Amino acid sequence: GQPLLLIGGPCALESEELARAVASTMQEICARLGINYVFKASFDKANRTSITSYRGPGLEAGLATLARIREDLQVPVVSDIHEVHQVAAAAEVLDILQIPAFLCRQTDLLSAAAKTGKPVNVKKGQFVSPWDMKNVVNKLHESGSDKVMLVERGASFGYNNLVVDMRSLPVMRSLGCPVIFDATHSVQLPGGAGGSSSGQREFIAPLTRAAMAAGIDGLFMEIHPDPDKALCDGPNSIPLDQVEELLTRLLRIREAVGDTF
Amino acid sequence: GQPLLLIGGPCALESEELARAVASTMQEICARLGINYVFKASFDKANRTSITSYRGPGLEAGLATLARIREDLQVPVVSDIHEVHQVAAAAEVLDILQIPAFLCRQTDLLSAAAKTGKPVNVKKGQFVSPWDMKNVVNKLHESGSDKVMLVERGASFGYNNLVVDMRSLPVMRSLGCPVIFDATHSVQLPGGAGGSSSGQREFIAPLTRAAMAAGIDGLFMEIHPDPDKALCDGPNSIPLDQVEELLTRLLRIREAVGDTF
Amino acid sequence: GQPLLLIGGPCALESEELARAVASTMQEICARLGINYVFKASFDKANRTSITSYRGPGLEAGLATLARIREDLQVPVVSDIHEVHQVAAAAEVLDILQIPAFLCRQTDLLSAAAKTGKPVNVKKGQFVSPWDMKNVVNKLHESGSDKVMLVERGASFGYNNLVVDMRSLPVMRSLGCPVIFDATHSVQLPGGAGGSSSGQREFIAPLTRAAMAAGIDGLFMEIHPDPDKALCDGPNSIPLDQVEELLTRLLRIREAVGDTF
Amino acid sequence: GQPLLLIGGPCALESEELARAVASTMQEICARLGINYVFKASFDKANRTSITSYRGPGLEAGLATLARIREDLQVPVVSDIHEVHQVAAAAEVLDILQIPAFLCRQTDLLSAAAKTGKPVNVKKGQFVSPWDMKNVVNKLHESGSDKVMLVERGASFGYNNLVVDMRSLPVMRSLGCPVIFDATHSVQLPGGAGGSSSGQREFIAPLTRAAMAAGIDGLFMEIHPDPDKALCDGPNSIPLDQVEELLTRLLRIREAVGDTF
Repeated sequence: GQPLLLIGGPCALESEELARAVASTMQEICARLGINYVFKASFDKANRTSITSYRGPGLEAGLATLARIREDLQVPVVSDIHEVHQVAAAAEVLDILQIPAFLCRQTDLLSAAAKTGKPVNVKKGQFVSPWDMKNVVNKLHESGSDKVMLVERGASFGYNNLVVDMRSLPVMRSLGCPVIFDATHSVQLPGGAGGSSSGQREFIAPLTRAAMAAGIDGLFMEIHPDPDKALCDGPNSIPLDQVEELLTRLLRIREAVGDTF
Repeated sequence: GQPLLLIGGPCALESEELARAVASTMQEICARLGINYVFKASFDKANRTSITSYRGPGLEAGLATLARIREDLQVPVVSDIHEVHQVAAAAEVLDILQIPAFLCRQTDLLSAAAKTGKPVNVKKGQFVSPWDMKNVVNKLHESGSDKVMLVERGASFGYNNLVVDMRSLPVMRSLGCPVIFDATHSVQLPGGAGGSSSGQREFIAPLTRAAMAAGIDGLFMEIHPDPDKALCDGPNSIPLDQVEELLTRLLRIREAVGDTF
Repeated sequence: GQPLLLIGGPCALESEELARAVASTMQEICARLGINYVFKASFDKANRTSITSYRGPGLEAGLATLARIREDLQVPVVSDIHEVHQVAAAAEVLDILQIPAFLCRQTDLLSAAAKTGKPVNVKKGQFVSPWDMKNVVNKLHESGSDKVMLVERGASFGYNNLVVDMRSLPVMRSLGCPVIFDATHSVQLPGGAGGSSSGQREFIAPLTRAAMAAGIDGLFMEIHPDPDKALCDGPNSIPLDQVEELLTRLLRIREAVGDTF
Repeated sequence: GQPLLLIGGPCALESEELARAVASTMQEICARLGINYVFKASFDKANRTSITSYRGPGLEAGLATLARIREDLQVPVVSDIHEVHQVAAAAEVLDILQIPAFLCRQTDLLSAAAKTGKPVNVKKGQFVSPWDMKNVVNKLHESGSDKVMLVERGASFGYNNLVVDMRSLPVMRSLGCPVIFDATHSVQLPGGAGGSSSGQREFIAPLTRAAMAAGIDGLFMEIHPDPDKALCDGPNSIPLDQVEELLTRLLRIREAVGDTF
């Protein structure tokens, strides 16, 4: 079978040093474990709960940082795009373009991403049923993309809560796309902390094991050396020094499940 | 008390003739009934279910049409904006800028809209709790806007379904903003028709009566002379020739409710 | 049109004195307002959150109290039944038999209630769609009942929350049954207070106004002279001294809506 | 670690022959695989969607059949109870008493079951949050039971749908009870077929694998030699001849997960 894909890194670009540290550590771990690693960090968090939340370095500086990390470490990089005008610059640097969940139905953004020829990784909207992602896939196909990945990150069932319906994994795989489980956003409680989202880090491990056993092609994880000090999404980030143990266990489950899911 | 506000018109701009017909008929009806009328039509439907769905005339042509209707009929106009680059041009023509539900957390879009000084009408995201709209209001306030309106258009409770929780109306009014009930999107069934959203027109009247009695400041309605031929959102549009009767009944309810809600 | 039906009283039978006080005050108010009044109190709360919660006087003593109130005040009475063995005794005293929401699919209980010939008032389960109540109605019809009433009391959309989907009112009316809105259980937050359910009394008025405008045949209300001291469901009960004002306003809305909903 | 528990059998008792065939085949399979097997079949389906649905042989005949199977095959048996009057007779035959999901808050039924001294297996209500099952556990403890098992069978998030929130498994385990995943009711679509519930058999395997990896103590499965001919819950039953392969794979996952979840 295919090796597992892991998209991971700090939620937002903080210092370049921190980003490099995560990327290089993860690269080593993944090489050891036989996992395909893609570094992820956002250059801009465009939909934080509060306007005063940390957003990142912005498009230009952020892409420059990502380009240096990509070049120096020889690691593929992915980041999320929010408006059409960002797409061209992003596609020059990034190996994969990511569409945020809230924006997964914005036709122009999908279409512009597709036309770059880069693989497009779309997070399923919290308000979209798994089977309706076929409309998103169709928009991308009709714009010329044949490299589409879909991400499960929880559905909005009830206020201030996200629920992962594991049926979404086989449903989205049946659309012909690799399916990725977002281990960390799936445990967010949107608005759960009043002026920001909170998260339930204790559920990252059981949900990720469950998704792996249900059948996925890849994982998405926010990873930080010190989540309690992270400038974004700390409550639902995985501490860097716990990732290898988690991945090792997940690979054992993947092997136990076997090829046909 | 304040007169009722009605934001209404065809979902998307189709022909200018059709738009004018709706606007002038609605203007007459509202004048007769003592309702403040604002004409609404989208110049671009940026998140249709399918890429082949009708989108509208686009920014430039659409704004030109809206400007002519505004000028000729002396009617205020509103339309929705999707990316920051549209905001300046839109603000030159529109009396109110509208933020679509999926985009209600996009900080840059909110901020750009606020900075124009125009009133901003934000649809509550299908994935946002009513009380969390305070974060949206705060983003707008902190960007300099003191004219914010909030719209209820249903919450995503279960796949392919929207549910209007009428508690959202007093909750959002308690944030200090006028609250508008979107009578027609609230009866959408997202993705309910496979490649498009379907709708339940039969529920427009009871839900609108309910919202009026719960307590609202305004209504939002998609109105079309022939909904079955509408190029967008026909299944949940109100036929133009039924609007006056519905509004008359709603005003009776509004009077019965009285001032303190 | 038909006069409005009001089913109301304290959640559970506490002292007979308190029950009488509520029943006679409500009887006077409803006579004045032209409302058909039915006194309701539970002889046993069979599904309280905690085993140590107050449950009521039990079947025998409770029915005896209800019989005395019925006789002395000449007021019809309703109470809820939980197991088949209670049905015969209950039917000797009660004018209407009520099926609790959690039990709305228990075939034997429905069937036994139907066979008494008494009207049966079924609360829609928090887990049942409005249209699926046709199966409940069919069970009652096939057991010989032609006097079925259905009650909306909120649906379980998300943890520790109930949402009233006002579409349920016309949907259930289309099944050919009078539809009653439960004004007080609809604002419960199940389990919201840890060892008990909490409630949001501030939403009773707007939700009830909304239901009245959407179109209902009757109201269900828990009414207590001093809700903060009620032994059951205090947080979502209406103070007895506020009922008349609320009902007066609701009747104005009912008149404004008119006959055809 | 503990061996896996499997509660399984046909939804309802049909012929004694069929029940015996399932029980003895399952007993052999589980012996081979090192699984603790408990035979389950209902003597009465008390809450079928339609009154004309098959219900089973009833209390007396059903318990007699279960007693014979228990005696002849030396297999423990479990069945579900619905009203208090059934508890004593059931406790004479059954090794475990099961409380149906709709009835999980009925205090008298829980209390009567607890007082028999038999282990009590409670299905989490579709309308109850995982953490609120602590109130159910408390009711049982306070009635003298220290052998409580909890079952996940999906939550009511949206009409005609059940969603398994895998977080419920660790949450309920944290209440100190063994947790069982109901592999077959979790894929029901309540009311999904109009006059009956439908089901999505294709999701049994991925959801069960997911639950096993998340961490559970046991499984509950409806198993039938020919599900398409089953008199109850056929659409969500597992064919008897596919059980061993599924269990084998699940045990591999269980081993891969290890002890600490």
